[in-house]
Amino acid sequence: MVANLERDSLILRVWSLLHRVRDVLMRCEDERFGQYGITSEQYGVLVTLKYIGESARPTDIARWLGRSPNSVSMILDRMAKAGLVRRVRSRKDRREVSVVMTSKAESALKPATKAGLEFIQKVMSPLLDEDLSTLVQLLEIIRHAGVQCMDQEVTIDELRGNDITSQRDLMKRLKQYTLSTTSRTKRQGGKKGKTTR
Amino acid sequence: MVANLERDSLILRVWSLLHRVRDVLMRCEDERFGQYGITSEQYGVLVTLKYIGESARPTDIARWLGRSPNSVSMILDRMAKAGLVRRVRSRKDRREVSVVMTSKAESALKPATKAGLEFIQKVMSPLLDEDLSTLVQLLEIIRHAGVQCMDQEVTIDELRGNDITSQRDLMKRLKQYTLSTTSRTKRQGGKKGKTTR
Repeated sequence: MVANLERDSLILRVWSLLHRVRDVLMRCEDERFGQYGITSEQYGVLVTLKYIGESARPTDIARWLGRSPNSVSMILDRMAKAGLVRRVRSRKDRREVSVVMTSKAESALKPATKAGLEFIQKVMSPLLDEDLSTLVQLLEIIRHAGVQCMDQEVTIDELRGNDITSQRDLMKRLKQYTLSTTSRTKRQGGKKGKTTR
Repeated sequence: MVANLERDSLILRVWSLLHRVRDVLMRCEDERFGQYGITSEQYGVLVTLKYIGESARPTDIARWLGRSPNSVSMILDRMAKAGLVRRVRSRKDRREVSVVMTSKAESALKPATKAGLEFIQKVMSPLLDEDLSTLVQLLEIIRHAGVQCMDQEVTIDELRGNDITSQRDLMKRLKQYTLSTTSRTKRQGGKKGKTTR
């Protein structure tokens, strides 16, 4: 009973810290990304678009971000209103809608990426590489247990595979992107498509 | 450069997992607390009220929750509308406002606390006690670095001291509370106070 209480106090502490760490990161990110006219949520969508490229359907974005299609749809609505994305008919299948970045978003994304990378490097700077590896391992376990609590049958490996930041080349691409001098347009397909809604 | 890329990929992974773990926990909590008519945010306020007792000013709640006074004020507005809290004049200082729980909130809080404890115990069950201690240590470091990024000069110990879940007796009190058969009314002072707004 005493041992249980000790463990349960630890559990409560971890749970609370997970909430607070995310809260404080979000506040810092919103402050930094706000300088470029975007929120941290919108930044997540833009990076995903950059990574997926021309055929990004809303469901793909939701999957990569690990969010519900509904919440992504609402974020996309606000982003369309703010002139950051457009919904266009997919070239491959005219019945499908895909999402493309506007030039306004493109010009915010590069400096925001640079600021974002600098920020997370600074926040994580007190941690050793071993600490970071340990955190990845433990957080993946909690995430998996959480997903199972929502009655979703999925393995840790499947979760990891659906996670854009677990792609080995993402950081390399982000760094190259912040260093590139001309903005690359990789979404010609989308740009030529017909705008919907 | 290669070593940096490796470390930066780890940093990106940790950062992403911190966001996703919190997202999935919030979704699970909202689902569970929703059965008792409250959100996980509102639950946080109610537990804090239960813990602080009769003289809870909005600024105290914000401090214990580690949130901005503004965001707590908005949460309290919605909770007042939903009939979960009332703002009353403080007995100690009539110029001050304190917040009290309604009986509606009180009757949701006990079963919600039971469900919440069961949920976090389940989610953390794959982790050993050592893992939990490691997580507390590493997450406190990140939280502290995040708070410093917002230009707030505060030590890790000060942060911990302002955190309700770092109080050694909280888990004991929560467990006793879920086991108690009659609801305790510890906020007589507030209840007798005059309702404001």
